[in-house]
Amino acid sequence: MTARSGRHFLQIPGPTNVPDRVLQAIARPTIDHRGPDFAEFTFDLTTRLKPVFGTRESIVAYPSSGTGAWEAALVNTLSPGDRVLAFETGHFASLWRDMAERLGLTVDFVPGDWRHGADPAILAEKLAADTAYEIAAVMVVHNETSTGVTSRIPEIRAAIDEARHPALLLVDTISSLGSIDYRHDEWGVDVTVGCSQKGLMLPPGLGFNAISEKALVAATRSRLPKSYWDWTPMLDNNERGFYPYTPATNLLYGLREALLMLEEEGLANVFARHRRHAAATRAAVHGWGLEVLCVDAREYSGSLTAVLLDEQYDADKVRRIILERYDMSLGTGLGRLAGRVFRIGHLGDFNDLMLAGTLSGVQMGLELAGVTVDPAGLQAALAVLRAD
Amino acid sequence: MTARSGRHFLQIPGPTNVPDRVLQAIARPTIDHRGPDFAEFTFDLTTRLKPVFGTRESIVAYPSSGTGAWEAALVNTLSPGDRVLAFETGHFASLWRDMAERLGLTVDFVPGDWRHGADPAILAEKLAADTAYEIAAVMVVHNETSTGVTSRIPEIRAAIDEARHPALLLVDTISSLGSIDYRHDEWGVDVTVGCSQKGLMLPPGLGFNAISEKALVAATRSRLPKSYWDWTPMLDNNERGFYPYTPATNLLYGLREALLMLEEEGLANVFARHRRHAAATRAAVHGWGLEVLCVDAREYSGSLTAVLLDEQYDADKVRRIILERYDMSLGTGLGRLAGRVFRIGHLGDFNDLMLAGTLSGVQMGLELAGVTVDPAGLQAALAVLRAD
Amino acid sequence: MTARSGRHFLQIPGPTNVPDRVLQAIARPTIDHRGPDFAEFTFDLTTRLKPVFGTRESIVAYPSSGTGAWEAALVNTLSPGDRVLAFETGHFASLWRDMAERLGLTVDFVPGDWRHGADPAILAEKLAADTAYEIAAVMVVHNETSTGVTSRIPEIRAAIDEARHPALLLVDTISSLGSIDYRHDEWGVDVTVGCSQKGLMLPPGLGFNAISEKALVAATRSRLPKSYWDWTPMLDNNERGFYPYTPATNLLYGLREALLMLEEEGLANVFARHRRHAAATRAAVHGWGLEVLCVDAREYSGSLTAVLLDEQYDADKVRRIILERYDMSLGTGLGRLAGRVFRIGHLGDFNDLMLAGTLSGVQMGLELAGVTVDPAGLQAALAVLRAD
Amino acid sequence: MTARSGRHFLQIPGPTNVPDRVLQAIARPTIDHRGPDFAEFTFDLTTRLKPVFGTRESIVAYPSSGTGAWEAALVNTLSPGDRVLAFETGHFASLWRDMAERLGLTVDFVPGDWRHGADPAILAEKLAADTAYEIAAVMVVHNETSTGVTSRIPEIRAAIDEARHPALLLVDTISSLGSIDYRHDEWGVDVTVGCSQKGLMLPPGLGFNAISEKALVAATRSRLPKSYWDWTPMLDNNERGFYPYTPATNLLYGLREALLMLEEEGLANVFARHRRHAAATRAAVHGWGLEVLCVDAREYSGSLTAVLLDEQYDADKVRRIILERYDMSLGTGLGRLAGRVFRIGHLGDFNDLMLAGTLSGVQMGLELAGVTVDPAGLQAALAVLRAD
Repeated sequence: MTARSGRHFLQIPGPTNVPDRVLQAIARPTIDHRGPDFAEFTFDLTTRLKPVFGTRESIVAYPSSGTGAWEAALVNTLSPGDRVLAFETGHFASLWRDMAERLGLTVDFVPGDWRHGADPAILAEKLAADTAYEIAAVMVVHNETSTGVTSRIPEIRAAIDEARHPALLLVDTISSLGSIDYRHDEWGVDVTVGCSQKGLMLPPGLGFNAISEKALVAATRSRLPKSYWDWTPMLDNNERGFYPYTPATNLLYGLREALLMLEEEGLANVFARHRRHAAATRAAVHGWGLEVLCVDAREYSGSLTAVLLDEQYDADKVRRIILERYDMSLGTGLGRLAGRVFRIGHLGDFNDLMLAGTLSGVQMGLELAGVTVDPAGLQAALAVLRAD
Repeated sequence: MTARSGRHFLQIPGPTNVPDRVLQAIARPTIDHRGPDFAEFTFDLTTRLKPVFGTRESIVAYPSSGTGAWEAALVNTLSPGDRVLAFETGHFASLWRDMAERLGLTVDFVPGDWRHGADPAILAEKLAADTAYEIAAVMVVHNETSTGVTSRIPEIRAAIDEARHPALLLVDTISSLGSIDYRHDEWGVDVTVGCSQKGLMLPPGLGFNAISEKALVAATRSRLPKSYWDWTPMLDNNERGFYPYTPATNLLYGLREALLMLEEEGLANVFARHRRHAAATRAAVHGWGLEVLCVDAREYSGSLTAVLLDEQYDADKVRRIILERYDMSLGTGLGRLAGRVFRIGHLGDFNDLMLAGTLSGVQMGLELAGVTVDPAGLQAALAVLRAD
Repeated sequence: MTARSGRHFLQIPGPTNVPDRVLQAIARPTIDHRGPDFAEFTFDLTTRLKPVFGTRESIVAYPSSGTGAWEAALVNTLSPGDRVLAFETGHFASLWRDMAERLGLTVDFVPGDWRHGADPAILAEKLAADTAYEIAAVMVVHNETSTGVTSRIPEIRAAIDEARHPALLLVDTISSLGSIDYRHDEWGVDVTVGCSQKGLMLPPGLGFNAISEKALVAATRSRLPKSYWDWTPMLDNNERGFYPYTPATNLLYGLREALLMLEEEGLANVFARHRRHAAATRAAVHGWGLEVLCVDAREYSGSLTAVLLDEQYDADKVRRIILERYDMSLGTGLGRLAGRVFRIGHLGDFNDLMLAGTLSGVQMGLELAGVTVDPAGLQAALAVLRAD
Repeated sequence: MTARSGRHFLQIPGPTNVPDRVLQAIARPTIDHRGPDFAEFTFDLTTRLKPVFGTRESIVAYPSSGTGAWEAALVNTLSPGDRVLAFETGHFASLWRDMAERLGLTVDFVPGDWRHGADPAILAEKLAADTAYEIAAVMVVHNETSTGVTSRIPEIRAAIDEARHPALLLVDTISSLGSIDYRHDEWGVDVTVGCSQKGLMLPPGLGFNAISEKALVAATRSRLPKSYWDWTPMLDNNERGFYPYTPATNLLYGLREALLMLEEEGLANVFARHRRHAAATRAAVHGWGLEVLCVDAREYSGSLTAVLLDEQYDADKVRRIILERYDMSLGTGLGRLAGRVFRIGHLGDFNDLMLAGTLSGVQMGLELAGVTVDPAGLQAALAVLRAD
């Protein structure tokens, strides 16, 4: 293949397009992670990180992927054989369930159709039935990266509160953090799981846990074996600006720069931008005469849109054509959605014309793949981008 | 103003979007420009640079803008009071004329309407009339950056040849080099003037002269004062891999990387890509019901398109709206075209989806500025990008 | 404090000075880790990585620090309650012991004076006494970062072989990999633990396990809970060029560049360079009239030198003066060596004049701190650097 | 040759080691040089640049080497046949003389021994003799890069003032600007010539003129042909934040970052640092038993030191050995000093340990080249660096 000109469109739902400022920050010389400059850096970083999680509580950062942060949430709060309740909202919810089982937990997995978020009503039922308080934790994925469906965490919280159930609430914000409004404290989340390579606009390599007081107490009783993920030495060291083992210094540099960018734009503006781009994308999908996988308007994702194709089409063929012809990467259908959907990431460091280029590429790719689409789809998206 | 997310669309007709590879090359540590590694580097660079000019003859590179390379072409070949023939193809042709006059040359400036290239027929007449061979040089701008009109250099050459006139042919390729097919040797050009920040995908700061044997001979008789621009010490030093004064080392690093990129894509593919993007852009302009400034299809520019608005509109207002709302820079109308045209650069490191984003932004901006446009324009452009 | 001019001297024994080439590689745009380009990249990377470990067997790379790779080595091969044998060679050996205990293993910890490596004779005794083959694994730190003492792995291997004991051999090469000759296959190591930020010249954020066939078999029986660190999905995915969860893409870019640099220099040359710099450093220490912590010449480290001060001096004061006056970071005394030693890192991307600058700074710092030193120390080091 | 590890020591007297911050700034995306953001950038840049020149008057910046700025100083102020007075302080003074002659000026060149600066007494004589005020300008090199000798500009100024002579004072600060105290206004300089790649810590590619009111008046009468270098359109455009032709955008980004760094360190500290490093270097040279080329202590250069070898030695052989063995570039002997001296640059982004490494390399290289040196030289330098 001939070399390609211009910039690749990385429109998978993460990793996202890393801004130049962040790439440059990552390329600064590594410093002594035990020296005084590093301690100052850590304090500043933590302060800036908290608003993104909507918390004043503790946050720990691991050199890891988001998957590692999933594991940290579990091994720090739970003990072998503990029962946890989880919702089959999609592929990643299923993977988290698998992890919990591999770590020796018993998962009560509420089945789902991969087109809806976690159902607060079912949660209410489950908790009401659990009069012995055997459910130690509720695991919810805030924004299912495989489906583009968000779960309504405040309603999940309300269901737990109404049941007066002591279960911990563990929430995966992998693809919502820094893109979709999220409030660890206000929503009473106990452990928020996050990572670097989506709304935080970094390359992969950092995993996060935001931790409530209640989760810290639970941690003192937790008996799952842990060392790398152990919150205690992490929090102890962080207090002095350090880490129990070598942190991913250069990614942390990038994190600081990304947080500065979010501050400069303003988090409320960031969230509004994602909502607007999601709306424009759905306008395109509907205009093309295609179906958005997410069926409940309350659960539309601000960070990605999964497009469901008619059974006669192969979504991966569409993706392949778009990659080859237009140098754009889209997300594949995962698990049971393989071949049926493709996913458009519109999160992170993104703007109107990048979205217009993205949707133009999708439209052309669909046409080239023989999918009948109404070209009014693109115009409908532009109408959204033209309105303020 | 709130900080902006995503990548700025730099769609002026140069400087162009500098690819990351080139930016990184420029950021390598500066080395000793008198050391053995630098000499090897210079030899390799010169070898790779020649095909872009279509020459096997000498090329010199100045730490300068393209304007400096204009001056070099004049002061090396001409003497005070020499008569030169130039064509008013637009703003930059006029500026080059001004420079020639400031340097003490007498310019015979063939008037033009800024919508056509240099007319070979007029040139033929002029040369035929110049029986005393008083015209020392013919100055032509290959691609007028202010208008998006290319001059047909082979026909210019033919006119000189048919007249058996000894005038030198000096050609400005500032915004065509590396974007539009150009052949210094085959077309018998004596001095080709180029720069770094357009098709070569570099930041500004390098000016070039490609020099024919005939021009070298002329240089030995030239009496315009010169030192910095003097070809002789430059060529002498270059032969040993060095420069008579400190070269712009880091921009030269970037130049090497840019040349590698052009090689990887293949120059023929690069030119075809520019032609295709220009065709798609014109399809959009015509589809919108607007006018392309260039009126002769033989002279359409591959690197930029100037769009002429009806007198009731202010093209700069359109540009301002597009900059504010969509973070895209377009070229302004220069000189007599001020307020009447805006220019879309589609050259350099560019691809289909970047163009689709660009044209989407132009369409939305026109609509927001109250210019009546048919949204079919964008679809027409996509049709070009969808066809192979 | 006033801003500092010039380059910081990062002479801790890791993270090391990251070369510009590697920093630039890390700053390249993140790509789709599920796309075809990434698979090709992964295959190439793995191929290039193996010689550094001296292996043809499997290697896995985690988004983690080296500590994570320690944990991976344990949880993949062992079961709760397993007995392991470890040697107290210094601070990091002690930390690894702690980790093993936290994970539920029983550690037989052979005491040491932190000035010698693991003793093959003691190992032989221990294994001879273990007639029931209760020792599931032997854990050795190849190069103790806290002491600058290397353990003689071939002799350790020989002791195991002679005892015909089935224990696995787990070796930490955190601060030797890519700096000191190491041979996973030839020495019969079962799991080699490595990381990115030392001899591999990367920022922190990658952890490695090289894994023998025997270790893979042990993994099938291992019952410690695991998910993130589980070798099986990692190896399965790697076979297709992918990862079970998002890899640290940009650090992997840097890894590839670092491996190219090691190839260009030649691994044998890299090791010889480290040995030579270590010899020059010891020449300085001895010339100053000070003591090298390592007492056995067979166990001198090629990557760092720990300098033992007389009790009347505070090694951390020396380090503080050097940091403040000369902008150089040195390693502190860890654990029981606190205040007694400082450590000079001379590993990674380093050369003779950087070492001369480093030793000059140490000499001046010692003098400023009131430590009596013979300035002939520096000259002795230069004599080593002057001899071929 | 095998690939080299570690950082090259670029110890020529410019280009100097470019700090990472500046390299990163240069690698930022190029923006529209006619847009509103660029205008703001220009204003800020000019404000920050003035203190480095010690001026409140006008400064222009060319995309050029320093040689271009020499030419600009001449063509803007003088007319064909004008007489100028210059001093043979070394190679660069001679080159500037050559340029003046090539441009049609008549140069009265005061001979020198290349070991002293311009002599204020001779200047006084020359001016006294010039009762017809035929000398239009006095050209002086502040810091001769070929010799490491500074001329005493305040005394030069005093000589002109005492003679009540109207000649303009043109000063080359190529290798002193940003390294050695310099005061355009206070010293009554009319045109100060500077460039980017020395004390300003940038790659080459920018030339500067600081211009007095008197020089601006002279410019209105100057008749040397000029266009690229013409101050008038430059100053007119700068007033609105723009340039008459495309500026070297990315180098200007780097300039801003470099100016921030100079501000952070404080100019007075920057000058003191250079003086201190020069003193340490001379201590080494004298300690080795070698000769510093500069013979007058009032004229010692803060930015470089030229070392004069006994005739039996070949200074270029010493340099070659040092380059090959220690990966350090030193300055060669230029013109009549070829083979007799080598020059150590200690300017720009530099610190104590980089200097210690530099001097260690010089000492080892001298020894390897068979030059008898007393190793006490290095210790003498360290003594300077150890004293506050």
